[in-house]
Amino acid sequence: MQAEVIAIGTELLLGQTIDSNSAWIGERLSELGVTLRRKTVVADRVDDVLAALNAVMADTQWVIITGGLGPTKDDLTKGILNDFFGGRLVYHPEIYSHIEALFARMGRVPGALNREQAEVPDVCEWLPNAVGTAPGMLFERKGQRFVSIPGVPFEMKHIMETHVLPRIRAESDAHIEHRFFMVQGIPESELAERMVDWESSLAKGLSLAYLPSPGIVKLRLTARTASDHAAHLLLDHASASLRTLLGRDIFAENILSIEEVVGELLKACGQTVATAESCTGGSIAALLTRIPGSSQYVQGGIVAYANEAKIQLLGVPEADLAQHGAVSDPVVRAMARGARQRLNADWGLASSGIMGPDGGSAAKPLGTVWLAVSGPGVDWAARFQMGDHRERSVRKSVLEVLSRLRGFLADSP
Amino acid sequence: MQAEVIAIGTELLLGQTIDSNSAWIGERLSELGVTLRRKTVVADRVDDVLAALNAVMADTQWVIITGGLGPTKDDLTKGILNDFFGGRLVYHPEIYSHIEALFARMGRVPGALNREQAEVPDVCEWLPNAVGTAPGMLFERKGQRFVSIPGVPFEMKHIMETHVLPRIRAESDAHIEHRFFMVQGIPESELAERMVDWESSLAKGLSLAYLPSPGIVKLRLTARTASDHAAHLLLDHASASLRTLLGRDIFAENILSIEEVVGELLKACGQTVATAESCTGGSIAALLTRIPGSSQYVQGGIVAYANEAKIQLLGVPEADLAQHGAVSDPVVRAMARGARQRLNADWGLASSGIMGPDGGSAAKPLGTVWLAVSGPGVDWAARFQMGDHRERSVRKSVLEVLSRLRGFLADSP
Repeated sequence: MQAEVIAIGTELLLGQTIDSNSAWIGERLSELGVTLRRKTVVADRVDDVLAALNAVMADTQWVIITGGLGPTKDDLTKGILNDFFGGRLVYHPEIYSHIEALFARMGRVPGALNREQAEVPDVCEWLPNAVGTAPGMLFERKGQRFVSIPGVPFEMKHIMETHVLPRIRAESDAHIEHRFFMVQGIPESELAERMVDWESSLAKGLSLAYLPSPGIVKLRLTARTASDHAAHLLLDHASASLRTLLGRDIFAENILSIEEVVGELLKACGQTVATAESCTGGSIAALLTRIPGSSQYVQGGIVAYANEAKIQLLGVPEADLAQHGAVSDPVVRAMARGARQRLNADWGLASSGIMGPDGGSAAKPLGTVWLAVSGPGVDWAARFQMGDHRERSVRKSVLEVLSRLRGFLADSP
Repeated sequence: MQAEVIAIGTELLLGQTIDSNSAWIGERLSELGVTLRRKTVVADRVDDVLAALNAVMADTQWVIITGGLGPTKDDLTKGILNDFFGGRLVYHPEIYSHIEALFARMGRVPGALNREQAEVPDVCEWLPNAVGTAPGMLFERKGQRFVSIPGVPFEMKHIMETHVLPRIRAESDAHIEHRFFMVQGIPESELAERMVDWESSLAKGLSLAYLPSPGIVKLRLTARTASDHAAHLLLDHASASLRTLLGRDIFAENILSIEEVVGELLKACGQTVATAESCTGGSIAALLTRIPGSSQYVQGGIVAYANEAKIQLLGVPEADLAQHGAVSDPVVRAMARGARQRLNADWGLASSGIMGPDGGSAAKPLGTVWLAVSGPGVDWAARFQMGDHRERSVRKSVLEVLSRLRGFLADSP
C-alpha cells in the first residue's frame, strides 16, 4: 500500500514553521507497512493546492492532506476540496454543538468564523475532531481516499489515530509487527557500531531502524512475514539477542519516555522524588510532572539559581560554595540531599552547571555540568561536558539525571 | 521571483529525519522577496526523482534540489541529474584535492566512493563545497536554474550562502519588508475577528499573515513595493493603526518570545523574579531560564506539588489550604508572596491548578488554574479555565502568568 502527503500552509514554505507533522505521519505509515511515496508542501493558494490535487500519483491508495482548515480567511482547504470533488457545503448542527462545548470549557462563545467550521461538503464523510474545532474530511474517488485534517499537530495526531490509521491498518494485508527498544545516553553512530554484527545477522523478514531524537535513540525492529506467528517467533529471537547485547542501556521496551519509566518505577516501589535545580532551571521538575498522575510521586523541587537560594532553601554549606564554587561535586551533592530533606522525598536529583553564554573558564568550560542523585543507599554525583548549545545541554542534563535515577530504581531490591 | 524545492531522501519520508532544511531555505528566500511556491519530498528512487524534475513548475526561476549527494550507493541524485540534462561525468582533480585535504584533517584517506564525488556532469557549473566532499551543481535550462546541493544542513547552508543566495539577490528586483507583531492570550479566531476591518482596509502592496503557535500569534505584515521608501511609508502607517487597534495585546514588535520580553523588562529596571509552581511543575522557571543571561534576574523557584511543601517552603497558611483547598485565590496569592520573600525577589509568580487526569469537581473542574503575581504594589490573582489537555494547560498557564508580569512591568514607572 502507498500513500502521499500534501501539506498546505504558507507558513511551511516561509520557514516560520518546521513541518514536524509529515515526519510523524511518515513514521506511523511505515509502521503499518505503507510506503509514503511523496510529500508536497504548497501555500494557502487555490491554484497551487489544485495543482497538487491534480498531480496526485495514480498508484497511491491514500492521500493525506494537512492544514488550511482554520477559521481565518487564509485557510482555504475546505472550499478547494469542496469544489474539487463537486460538493456543496452543508451545515451540521452536531459539529457546531461540539464547537460550542469546546469554547464553553474555556468560558468563551464561538464567533461567526467558527460557525462556518461546522459546514462540511456533502460529498465527504466528516471525521469528528474531539480536540479541536475543524472536523476532518474523507473523500473517495476512483478507489483513492483523500483525507483532509487540520495542521495543528495534536489535532492532526488525534484524527489520524482515531479515524485514519485504524482504517489503513484494517485494509493492509501485510503482517507487520514492531518491537521498540528505547536507548538513552549512547550516540547513534556509537550504537550503530556496537550493533553492526547483530544487525547483519538479522534473519530474513526482519529489519532495523534507528530513530534518534535528542539524547534518546529509539530502535525499531520490524518483521514483515506471512503470518503473525512467524513474526512473533522472529521478533522474540532477535529481541533476546538484542537484550543480551545492549543490556541495561535499553531503558524501556516500548515507546515510553524516560520520565514515564521513572514514574512507573517510583509508583511500583511507593517512593517519591524531589529536585534541586540550578542550570536546568526547573526542567527536571517540568519533565517529571508532564506525566499525568505524577503528583503521586513528585514532592516538588527547588530552582536555586542564586547562591543564597542554594544556601537558604537547600542548606548547601556556604563554605562549599566559597571553596569549590556552585558548579562542583560537594555543592551538587548537598543540593540533592537538601531537596530530599526539605521536600521530604525518598530521592533527590540535582543539577549545577555552566550553560553560558558567559561564565566558562579553563577549569570549568562552558557546558560543564555536575549532576547528583541522593537516595536510599545512594549518593551519586558526576561531571559531564554537555557542549555549548544551551537548550541541548539542559535537555541532555535532564535526560542524564533521570536515566541515573532509573538505574538506581531498577537496582533497588 | 519564484522558486521551488525538491528534497531527496528516503529518511525524510520515513519520519526518521525532520526536514529542517526546507524551513531554512524558505525563510532565506522569503527575506529576498522570492516566493517559494512548492516543496516536494521524494525518496532516493530514480523514478520518483525524475517525476519531480519533470513536474517542475514552468513559472519558477529557481529549483533548489537538496540531498542524495553522499558517497553511498543509495545516493542517486548526481547520476539522475546527469542523465536528465544529457551530460557526461567528468573527473575534476581540483575537487579531489579538496576531498583529500578534508580527509587529511581527520587523519584519514578517501576511499573509491569518495573519488567518484570528484566527478561532475559537464553540463553544469560546479559549486565548491568548502565544508564537505560533495560539490554543488548548477544547471540551466530555458531560463530555469536547477541547483543541487547536499542535504547535510551545514553543507546546504554553506553552499546556499556562498553561491546561491548571492546570485538570487543580485537578480531580484522586489523591495520586500516585514514587520512582526507578537500577540499573546488571544485565540487566532478571536484576533482575526477583531482585525477583519483593519485587514480589509490594508493598502495595496501590504499583506498580513497569522502565524500561530501555542498561546502566541505572530502577525507578519509584509510590504512588496517598488522602493524601500514606499515600503517604509506603508508599513509605518499600517503599524500605527494596528497598534491603536490591539494596544497592549501586542507584547513585542519583533520576533521575541514572551520570556525574552519579560527578561528585557526585568533587566531594564534591575528587578528580579522568583516562582512558586504547583500545576505548572517547574515550567515557568524552565521557560524563564531558557534565556541566556537569565541568571541576572531569575532568583530561582519552588515547585510545591505536595501541600507540605507549600506550607514549609512557601509559608502558605495551613488554614487557607484546609479551608479553600490548594487551588484557590488565597493559596495562590500566598504562594506568590512566599516565592518573593523566600527567594528574596522583587516579583513572585505562582500557579495552582487541576491538570488531571483526576481531581476535578463540579466547583473546580479539570483545567481550573489559579495564577498570581506579587510585586511592588501588585497583588494580582485570577482564575482560568485552561481545558483538559495537560501539556497545553501548562503551556497556557505559563504564558498567561508571564504575560501578566509583562503588563505590570510595562506599567511600572
